[in-house]
Amino acid sequence: MRVGILRSGGVGRVLSDGLAGAGHDVMLGTRDVGALLARPADGGESFSEWHEANPAIAIGSFADTAAHGEVVINATAGGASLEALRMADADNLAGKILIDVANPLDFSAGFPPTLTVANVDSLGEQIQRALPDTRVVKALNTVTAVLMVDPQRLAGGEHHLFVCGDDVDAKATVTRWLQQWFGWRHVVDLGGIEAARATEMYLALWTRTMRALGTPMFNVRVVPDAEG
Amino acid sequence: MRVGILRSGGVGRVLSDGLAGAGHDVMLGTRDVGALLARPADGGESFSEWHEANPAIAIGSFADTAAHGEVVINATAGGASLEALRMADADNLAGKILIDVANPLDFSAGFPPTLTVANVDSLGEQIQRALPDTRVVKALNTVTAVLMVDPQRLAGGEHHLFVCGDDVDAKATVTRWLQQWFGWRHVVDLGGIEAARATEMYLALWTRTMRALGTPMFNVRVVPDAEG
Repeated sequence: MRVGILRSGGVGRVLSDGLAGAGHDVMLGTRDVGALLARPADGGESFSEWHEANPAIAIGSFADTAAHGEVVINATAGGASLEALRMADADNLAGKILIDVANPLDFSAGFPPTLTVANVDSLGEQIQRALPDTRVVKALNTVTAVLMVDPQRLAGGEHHLFVCGDDVDAKATVTRWLQQWFGWRHVVDLGGIEAARATEMYLALWTRTMRALGTPMFNVRVVPDAEG
Repeated sequence: MRVGILRSGGVGRVLSDGLAGAGHDVMLGTRDVGALLARPADGGESFSEWHEANPAIAIGSFADTAAHGEVVINATAGGASLEALRMADADNLAGKILIDVANPLDFSAGFPPTLTVANVDSLGEQIQRALPDTRVVKALNTVTAVLMVDPQRLAGGEHHLFVCGDDVDAKATVTRWLQQWFGWRHVVDLGGIEAARATEMYLALWTRTMRALGTPMFNVRVVPDAEG
């Protein structure tokens, strides 16, 4: 399957590794391909080093990537998502499923971050309003990137993911993909895209729990299990 | 132990049942004692019927109840908490631990509710600012009332509660009480009272998960377990 991943930072890289490893035809989209490939290493390997080691993953502009994908994943930083999606072009996204994994985190006052939008609106809703012909499904934004693509790394996969979106068929499709692609067995359907408020606002608890545990490698299990 | 519970609705009643059953000297505080006792049944038993069946639980004004308690629990509706605490009088609460179990839910636009304060402030912080001589510990606000006092009713108690507060000793004391009073074994310390934002904003996810599951009888287990 052709998957386009609009990226910023490590989340897109982890997702593209996971999806390319599962045999998908992945393009990773960025604002400026040349600048990304020229960027020096920031601690770990540089992007160009990673790219040389993963030649099967194409790199393109946001628009190229949106056009490439049969499904497109928004893995940009929440504060940059709406602009990245404008650059991706609504025409390239029309009729497609967009999986929104972004969180509208604002670190300008340090850690823990606040949200740029919360309570009476959400990034997921903003994206759906900006792209009325795209079927937005919010998912995966409640766990760290490594767990997104490998839930079995924690408690045998016995923990939960939450999805929401206005298009019921798109949501069912994404829920099936999450199982097929990554092995997610427990997915709670929270309702329409309005429920993006719920999973984005949960980041306030997620960030402080991460601080308390000293690791982002955790998730929550809903008890009793939603699936019985 | 003398416990004062500032109440509104069923949460205070469940808490007082739980605490009186465990041998504590409980007073339940309300805005207008006469009006509460005269109130007709709303579905189940009336307050006066409940009170006759539970004569050991004293009823008093907010101020009487705050004065009575060696520890005071704010179980008022979030939108009414600051006024109730003003009526309770800061002098009656000075030096004491106040366990804040309230959530600032706004149902004026229906279900799911929004929050009256979120993201850059919280009810817990507002209460701590209003009562600088009181040691506010936010706790229990992430589960339905029945589970607050009986976590064993769900998954053998293998699920988590979150506490926060600026006074480290008060927080440790409340964590011990939660274990002694109700049997809570898993309590995550999220930090200062600022983290009340986290557990209050979690209500956005809690309300929609309740709708998805069709029951408020659930909680989350943090995996891996914070206690190891």
